[in-house]
Amino acid sequence: MPKHIILDTDPGIDDSLAILLALASPEIVLDGISTIHGNASTTQVTTNALSILKLAHANQIPVYRGCELPLVQPSLLSPETHGNSGLGYAKLPEPAARPQVKHGSDFIIEHIMSHPGEISLVAIGPLTNVALAVRKEPRIVENVKEVFVMGGAIKYQGNTTPLAEYNTYVDPHAAHVVFHSGMPIVLTPLDVTYDCIFLKEDLNRLLKIDSPITKFIADATRFYMEFHDEYQKIDGCVINDPMTLALTYMPEICDYQDLYVDVDISTGVGLGNTFADFYNYEKKAPNMRVALGVRPRMFMELFLERMEKLARVNS
Amino acid sequence: MPKHIILDTDPGIDDSLAILLALASPEIVLDGISTIHGNASTTQVTTNALSILKLAHANQIPVYRGCELPLVQPSLLSPETHGNSGLGYAKLPEPAARPQVKHGSDFIIEHIMSHPGEISLVAIGPLTNVALAVRKEPRIVENVKEVFVMGGAIKYQGNTTPLAEYNTYVDPHAAHVVFHSGMPIVLTPLDVTYDCIFLKEDLNRLLKIDSPITKFIADATRFYMEFHDEYQKIDGCVINDPMTLALTYMPEICDYQDLYVDVDISTGVGLGNTFADFYNYEKKAPNMRVALGVRPRMFMELFLERMEKLARVNS
Amino acid sequence: MPKHIILDTDPGIDDSLAILLALASPEIVLDGISTIHGNASTTQVTTNALSILKLAHANQIPVYRGCELPLVQPSLLSPETHGNSGLGYAKLPEPAARPQVKHGSDFIIEHIMSHPGEISLVAIGPLTNVALAVRKEPRIVENVKEVFVMGGAIKYQGNTTPLAEYNTYVDPHAAHVVFHSGMPIVLTPLDVTYDCIFLKEDLNRLLKIDSPITKFIADATRFYMEFHDEYQKIDGCVINDPMTLALTYMPEICDYQDLYVDVDISTGVGLGNTFADFYNYEKKAPNMRVALGVRPRMFMELFLERMEKLARVNS
Amino acid sequence: MPKHIILDTDPGIDDSLAILLALASPEIVLDGISTIHGNASTTQVTTNALSILKLAHANQIPVYRGCELPLVQPSLLSPETHGNSGLGYAKLPEPAARPQVKHGSDFIIEHIMSHPGEISLVAIGPLTNVALAVRKEPRIVENVKEVFVMGGAIKYQGNTTPLAEYNTYVDPHAAHVVFHSGMPIVLTPLDVTYDCIFLKEDLNRLLKIDSPITKFIADATRFYMEFHDEYQKIDGCVINDPMTLALTYMPEICDYQDLYVDVDISTGVGLGNTFADFYNYEKKAPNMRVALGVRPRMFMELFLERMEKLARVNS
Repeated sequence: MPKHIILDTDPGIDDSLAILLALASPEIVLDGISTIHGNASTTQVTTNALSILKLAHANQIPVYRGCELPLVQPSLLSPETHGNSGLGYAKLPEPAARPQVKHGSDFIIEHIMSHPGEISLVAIGPLTNVALAVRKEPRIVENVKEVFVMGGAIKYQGNTTPLAEYNTYVDPHAAHVVFHSGMPIVLTPLDVTYDCIFLKEDLNRLLKIDSPITKFIADATRFYMEFHDEYQKIDGCVINDPMTLALTYMPEICDYQDLYVDVDISTGVGLGNTFADFYNYEKKAPNMRVALGVRPRMFMELFLERMEKLARVNS
Repeated sequence: MPKHIILDTDPGIDDSLAILLALASPEIVLDGISTIHGNASTTQVTTNALSILKLAHANQIPVYRGCELPLVQPSLLSPETHGNSGLGYAKLPEPAARPQVKHGSDFIIEHIMSHPGEISLVAIGPLTNVALAVRKEPRIVENVKEVFVMGGAIKYQGNTTPLAEYNTYVDPHAAHVVFHSGMPIVLTPLDVTYDCIFLKEDLNRLLKIDSPITKFIADATRFYMEFHDEYQKIDGCVINDPMTLALTYMPEICDYQDLYVDVDISTGVGLGNTFADFYNYEKKAPNMRVALGVRPRMFMELFLERMEKLARVNS
Repeated sequence: MPKHIILDTDPGIDDSLAILLALASPEIVLDGISTIHGNASTTQVTTNALSILKLAHANQIPVYRGCELPLVQPSLLSPETHGNSGLGYAKLPEPAARPQVKHGSDFIIEHIMSHPGEISLVAIGPLTNVALAVRKEPRIVENVKEVFVMGGAIKYQGNTTPLAEYNTYVDPHAAHVVFHSGMPIVLTPLDVTYDCIFLKEDLNRLLKIDSPITKFIADATRFYMEFHDEYQKIDGCVINDPMTLALTYMPEICDYQDLYVDVDISTGVGLGNTFADFYNYEKKAPNMRVALGVRPRMFMELFLERMEKLARVNS
Repeated sequence: MPKHIILDTDPGIDDSLAILLALASPEIVLDGISTIHGNASTTQVTTNALSILKLAHANQIPVYRGCELPLVQPSLLSPETHGNSGLGYAKLPEPAARPQVKHGSDFIIEHIMSHPGEISLVAIGPLTNVALAVRKEPRIVENVKEVFVMGGAIKYQGNTTPLAEYNTYVDPHAAHVVFHSGMPIVLTPLDVTYDCIFLKEDLNRLLKIDSPITKFIADATRFYMEFHDEYQKIDGCVINDPMTLALTYMPEICDYQDLYVDVDISTGVGLGNTFADFYNYEKKAPNMRVALGVRPRMFMELFLERMEKLARVNS
């Protein structure tokens, strides 16, 4: 029985790869996509999501526009990481479909509430839509099957401030709401994603197949690789989001620890810092399962095989 | 032409008086009520709103349940101010109607968007519903006619912490969202409401009319007067909310200043503090009109006359 | 028996007037001056203090250099309020004496500890020296007679940020230390000092006496009046500091309330905000006596008479 | 040429071991000890320091009492880690000497200023004395040879809160002052000290020598080992402080990185968090050298040999 998935996302280069991986995974059914500000504006990322679906001939998957702004903080987009379009140097086809009328947060609520216990929510952007959904309909907490979140940096340094990971920094208050909501969360923080480098040789392997899919991956990641090289001296690029998607059906990629995790929402240098109470000083029950160890090549092999398969179908 | 009003409220003793004043004011049409946690739980205040409508034979007015929790902060109810039911010693009839299925924040969005420029939003509880509505549908900012907010304490001390007024303290992040949203706001802070005391002699005047309405006002305010006497040495009680409602059609009750007002959302002693930049140190344009002077008896006469009229109709 | 005074000060225009008032008051004996960064650098204000003493033929009074930086915050000088020299347009004589070798905070400690119960500390600048003294020698808390502090804005708006008064904003952590030290404090906040305007006609009255003293007051306050006119639309200037000095021997200038006062040291918009717990929500004992009412002309008459007397002696 | 050392310390179990290591190290000369609140009260740790010196027949080394309270925060002692006396189960001889009259922070100032460029300051407790010294005499920044600090947790979790190490949590503001002072700092954070476990077999090796020194180490560390076992599931105990002392003459125990390190002083969950800007997001020059890698047995061999030597001399 494949898992039914809602993907909440701000494509974004690695978000796009997560969409492609979802489409290439028979283990899951992608019921719909809700979009969220982040790597680019909500208007842009909604277009991007639709274009990615067009690229992969998956126009039947509904896309729901979500929030345009963080819950409390002012807007913070990231053109320097993802380019102005959010997709690096890639040029995508015009969308073949239009976004749904329903709001992304309402799609999350209604889809979960009408399929109690059956929907896996995979949230790989800022958590604004999910927080809004929790506040508007608290019963989704008991009715969602599980929530996979890409975000945070537990022991690892931040990728946006010295302490904060991008998704959490963009909307720390939303992360605070979601982390303390009681939903069954699996967190994929930078601690594991930064061990998974998509290397130039990985790209070269994909490029052996001539396909719009592989061309897109090449154009999108080239920009990303330049960014990582300039700022973080990484040869290749980190693709945080597809790994989170992969964990929905191949959990053995990571090792996990059940922990009480909080996010700093004070107005100082710690804003957006995610941290775990490893020694349980605060005597609080764990509120999520955190991926803290990873088998990078297990993930990368999966990713490459699936992209090859998808590319062959679309070549 | 009467103004069309949405009342976002957490009844609550003085919230109930605002509902009654709305019903007794031919200058306005109460299109609907959205409820919000605050003086009591959302379930309780929704029942209270419906019961108040029953008391005043206004069951046709739709009531929409809103959020159960503040945007980010944990729940903070106030049984010591408003009693366990939120209505002091008053016993109200069972509601004759049920709440609508639509969520309070969606009612706010849809009603404003379907009547652009025509709806006055009067928000007299914590601003969670309004903040949620702004984040989900930012276009209400341009389409709402005006927003009257009861909340904050500008120069005045707080009524919940040394610095914070209750509505703002309960959901400071929601207030932050609303204050910085760009909506045309008229704020009624404690600076003016604490000058308006509903005295025992005011109550006695109402009690000359034997009616369920006057009995309700007596039972509800008796509890409130005891609270004010114990905590703040005020002989009588402050009824913050009806004055905010009254300003929608009798603005001359107050004097106003256009100011840049902010709310402190840092995690310290200032949480929920609302303050104005009187000297314009921050070089920011005013974001609201703030009532800073008041003619207390002008309001009180209006309130008493309208309650007398309502009581006579319902005696 | 005259009171023995230590004046901790950052002259500064109104600080200079406080020094002059101290010299013109037979009710007190000025045992020494400790200097502190604030209106100008510590080097500059130390020179200024010595020059003021020279101007008034009081070179025998020892001046002790204090801290150069706030306890925790980075430096914040205020050339726009007090001019580059800290004394507006005034040109003062070169000092006739040199500062003492001992540090200002050590002078405070040693003078109090060697005269237990006899020394009144008058602190009219940022509280860094006093906080340092308290931390180094906690026993001064029990051995100081009283501490008069010019600082804070209780109900009044700030004069540096919307919420914060200058002295407290420059070193909020020092104020926090002093306020919570247990010392017997009398606070003179902006709530009373901003009611005391030194008017142009007050200045004209002084200028009837031709003296270096009156010329200095004219040159110094002219700059200050321009500042107040530009920023705060006040015709004249506020002279906060001499009033604090005057309260040491003429307390009836003000009305007082015993209150628990705190200062916000969180890293947000409230930094340096001083506030009182008027309703005693926090159930804490008062930690200071706060001047909240004032008879402005009682003070101003005193000040003018004393300056006239001093001018005549020095004409 | 041995290095001249000031040891600023709150003994404390592992602080005591640092004192003993200092006495057993011909590479350094211990010029004096300044004491500081922390593991126990300043009165207690001053007595403890004198008793340790008595135990090791080193009564000639002067001990200077320092601050009793953190710079800004309220007091926070740690009897659960170090026992009521601060020394676990150890019973020490009565001191043979008395503390000096001069304050610890003045000793730091005067000793550095009278030996410019020659004094190494080793601070292994909360940094209150050092911060006070910097604020009172800023010129020590240029005149101290180097400052070794035990404190902080860079990537490592905290040992007091989820984010904060004990010394930094006790006085975060002092750490902030010192970190940003410009002094040449070498930091030994938990990242390296928690890799150095003093095992029961290490203790057994020492106990082969019958001496008051080895008996003291056994009695002191037994309590500490019980603490570590209960709270952190560590078999043995972490002895943070002696390693910091050892780095003064055997830097090769650790590997270092030059980094910009800050400490969070906001009033929230991050209070006392020390963190490095590894990717240099803030474009600030490194303000310290941080030990981030360690050869644990290199240190432990040194420590055991020196303690054996000291024990033999004192058996």
